[in-house]
Amino acid sequence: MSLSLYDITVPVFIRAFGNLTEILKKGEAYADEKGLAHKELLNARLIEDMYPLIAQIQRASDAAKFVPVRLGQVENVPMDDNEATFADLHARIERTVTFLKSVDPAVMADREEAEVVLKTRSGSTTFTGRNYVLGFAIPNFYFHVTTAYAILRHKGVPIGKMDYIGRSQ
Amino acid sequence: MSLSLYDITVPVFIRAFGNLTEILKKGEAYADEKGLAHKELLNARLIEDMYPLIAQIQRASDAAKFVPVRLGQVENVPMDDNEATFADLHARIERTVTFLKSVDPAVMADREEAEVVLKTRSGSTTFTGRNYVLGFAIPNFYFHVTTAYAILRHKGVPIGKMDYIGRSQ
Repeated sequence: MSLSLYDITVPVFIRAFGNLTEILKKGEAYADEKGLAHKELLNARLIEDMYPLIAQIQRASDAAKFVPVRLGQVENVPMDDNEATFADLHARIERTVTFLKSVDPAVMADREEAEVVLKTRSGSTTFTGRNYVLGFAIPNFYFHVTTAYAILRHKGVPIGKMDYIGRSQ
Repeated sequence: MSLSLYDITVPVFIRAFGNLTEILKKGEAYADEKGLAHKELLNARLIEDMYPLIAQIQRASDAAKFVPVRLGQVENVPMDDNEATFADLHARIERTVTFLKSVDPAVMADREEAEVVLKTRSGSTTFTGRNYVLGFAIPNFYFHVTTAYAILRHKGVPIGKMDYIGRSQ
């Protein structure tokens, strides 16, 4: 018995986006309750030169989408990064989840040793499929989801770790 | 070709603790450079009722240790949660990594469908081994590592995402 690269990414990301949706709803409800402009949360950051909430969701979306794109040669569905409201963020998450649900697990099969080249601002890094997923894609995905949570928590939104983990298993 | 529950947790956690060690060193160096008391970083939080940096490291340590304990029936090495300095945190990470390195992958083999019961303040949750790892242990581990990073970043420590991801693959 064992797990595939698909098993440890795509369905896990879909579930995390469900939790993130509930977290964002709690953020919006908190803003409304406290009379805060939504933008105060949407543009909030942990420090000036770090991405705000909106960009954390965009990066979580990209982090998830790029797994089947890079490992399964699935064609990316580019998204414009023009989200400006909570409704926009929910739509972004929905489109991301729709894309993830469309991925055939077979396209990601047996890619553990495949070469994955990642181009970043600082150059390019070559991974095996396995190291790309375990050492880059998964931690990168959770980085952005957790930072989105942390920004809302920092601004006072009453969320707890179980909102992040999710209650149903 | 496929991955075991061991493959997707223990070596991944060991690598992340290596990155976390470097992040903590940068935090300490920043405090020294700016003349900040170490305690200002060690006890820093994103909001009053959230765990401070020290506790984030303790919880990351526990999150990692409990995977072989719960899945492989390995005996836990209890740790006292009495860390108070950067040196203490490094020692905690080293002891955690030593414990993780001692785990025989065979004890975690074929536990995907095993029952894992998790007791929390709000009751107990029963998982399959697979859902425990993918839906609880891994996101929980990255939650605490990312929050440790976020606290230091929030306090001005010059770290970037590649410090979290790690440079070697």
